[in-house]
Amino acid sequence: MKALKAIAWENGKLSLLNQTLLPVQKQTVTCHTYDEVAEAIKTMVVRGAPAIGVTAAYGLVLAARSCAHENRPMMNTLLQRAKSVLRQTRPTAVNLFWALDRMEKIWLDNPDSPVSELKKMLEAEAIAIDEEDLARNKSIGRHGSELIPAGANILTHCNAGALATAGYGTALGVIRAAHADNKKIHVYADETRPLLQGARLTAWELLEDNIPVTLITDSMAGYLMGQKKIDLIIVGADRIAANGDVANKIGTYSVAVLADYHRIPFYVAAPLSTFDLSIATGNEIPIEQRQHEEIRKINGVTVAPENVKVYNPAFDVTPALLITAIITDHGILKPPYAQCISALAGLNQCYTEKKGCTP
Amino acid sequence: MKALKAIAWENGKLSLLNQTLLPVQKQTVTCHTYDEVAEAIKTMVVRGAPAIGVTAAYGLVLAARSCAHENRPMMNTLLQRAKSVLRQTRPTAVNLFWALDRMEKIWLDNPDSPVSELKKMLEAEAIAIDEEDLARNKSIGRHGSELIPAGANILTHCNAGALATAGYGTALGVIRAAHADNKKIHVYADETRPLLQGARLTAWELLEDNIPVTLITDSMAGYLMGQKKIDLIIVGADRIAANGDVANKIGTYSVAVLADYHRIPFYVAAPLSTFDLSIATGNEIPIEQRQHEEIRKINGVTVAPENVKVYNPAFDVTPALLITAIITDHGILKPPYAQCISALAGLNQCYTEKKGCTP
Repeated sequence: MKALKAIAWENGKLSLLNQTLLPVQKQTVTCHTYDEVAEAIKTMVVRGAPAIGVTAAYGLVLAARSCAHENRPMMNTLLQRAKSVLRQTRPTAVNLFWALDRMEKIWLDNPDSPVSELKKMLEAEAIAIDEEDLARNKSIGRHGSELIPAGANILTHCNAGALATAGYGTALGVIRAAHADNKKIHVYADETRPLLQGARLTAWELLEDNIPVTLITDSMAGYLMGQKKIDLIIVGADRIAANGDVANKIGTYSVAVLADYHRIPFYVAAPLSTFDLSIATGNEIPIEQRQHEEIRKINGVTVAPENVKVYNPAFDVTPALLITAIITDHGILKPPYAQCISALAGLNQCYTEKKGCTP
Repeated sequence: MKALKAIAWENGKLSLLNQTLLPVQKQTVTCHTYDEVAEAIKTMVVRGAPAIGVTAAYGLVLAARSCAHENRPMMNTLLQRAKSVLRQTRPTAVNLFWALDRMEKIWLDNPDSPVSELKKMLEAEAIAIDEEDLARNKSIGRHGSELIPAGANILTHCNAGALATAGYGTALGVIRAAHADNKKIHVYADETRPLLQGARLTAWELLEDNIPVTLITDSMAGYLMGQKKIDLIIVGADRIAANGDVANKIGTYSVAVLADYHRIPFYVAAPLSTFDLSIATGNEIPIEQRQHEEIRKINGVTVAPENVKVYNPAFDVTPALLITAIITDHGILKPPYAQCISALAGLNQCYTEKKGCTP
């Protein structure tokens, strides 16, 4: 089976699998300009923190390629404008800013490179971000699989799979690795209202890979935990603060509290690009508020009074104290997280691959 | 404004507001036979524990009226068959069995009454069940309003409103009474997947009564509690065991655990007909499993892979230890519940209207 990839860069064109239409329609959206890339991120044609980062990087490549003249000042202005537009698409996932900053470093560090040369360097950097993300996810999978007991029933929320990343997935990367390790796991997927990424994307991805999956509504997770039908929980992350607080899809916090009450391990899986060491705690993470129509309507069908007031935060923050471990591409972090996470910047030996953090 | 009533008995016809189509369509379904009533309950044209009880009682009236002969043995057979059909519609809400048993008592206690006489007695009993339920809800509202602080932000799950009862509502009865008492409350309504009774029914009912309401997805309730935006929770009940365990719409248990974690009062509002003293604990309450299509599709639109396995329990059980108080038409019960509830059978003085249970 061909590995699932939602983002494809081929012959100078960016193709995105339209995640708003899955699993009913498999439509590919081709982006020719950075504006089209920004629109695709905003409208969630592509979503998932690592995937947004990779996509935005290619957005800057498209911006660079649109520069017709060998004029570096013009090129720099264009790239800064594109970066600014792409930055403003979505506020919560830090991978977006991380990828844009990493791309910016190329043009800042190479002020004398000619435009044609810079175009190649930016393309190479975006491809590196893409390929590294895939490799990081496989590493997360290898580390995480060690935490999964044979026969485990695993709950996940939203989609932190191949579709949310350059491929393989973070939370679903761990699940894929455990499945590949023949652990006979079974997954419960929260449908994840309002946009149903669990029902539409996670259930679909797992079925495609023949990993046993049962779909539930978000409201059923607690009941299943009370019935002892869940052995552990794994979710992805959109931003992790220096103290280990995790922003992720709305509903993650509820799942974490329910896990704590039922004494069920709650794991977060994320690559280094999801950590934001510039902020101390989750309180500082901006939470995106999305359109009311996402709740009032489902697939265009009205399901609530048209004039009802709606509250629609796209993310919430789970405090570090509710998180059993954070599975990264560099190993498993265990509480207390602050020292492990600050060490990630320098990639020193605070955390060990197998034993977790022992400051 | 005319009070909202989902069940109307007029000139020997039962009219039900079709709750599967609200709020988009206001369609009335007229039932002429007990089979049609059974179908309306099964398909949730009418839903909500007290409303199901009232509707089933009228179903037996329709059965009685269909008896064309002055033949009591035939009439008795017909009524027993109708009762049996109506009993099998839905398993969890005890009000259904309570109402059917109360109706049965009429024909068992009056074996010598002629058919024509019995028809009148059954109709009078069904109307009494209907009118008493409305009165009980208003009493629940009066008692419950005392628990609501001015300016409270109240979370509710599913619909325990006028639509779920003979009128006024249980949980929404308390909310209506607090609003009438000018307490300036504001309600957050969980949308309540899969059938969206919160989005479709609760939001609509409250808007109709000009009670401020904000719609959220079920997954947002925990986040709101963490942000200190919820002061208390009130839900209805489908069955309450002798120890105070409460079966209610799936997701209620999650809300109760989240409330416990955040130290927010969690109230259940229900009339005496919802108590089932024949069972010791919630473990004995049968939980209805409903069709997978309710989760895979929303309003007929596919939102998940068509072959994905689904788990769809319609209810869960919240243990008594997570319930701050149970608001009944006879006063407010406080833990420990067992003695208060056993006293309900005899309506003795174990509970007092204002001070709760002081055994």
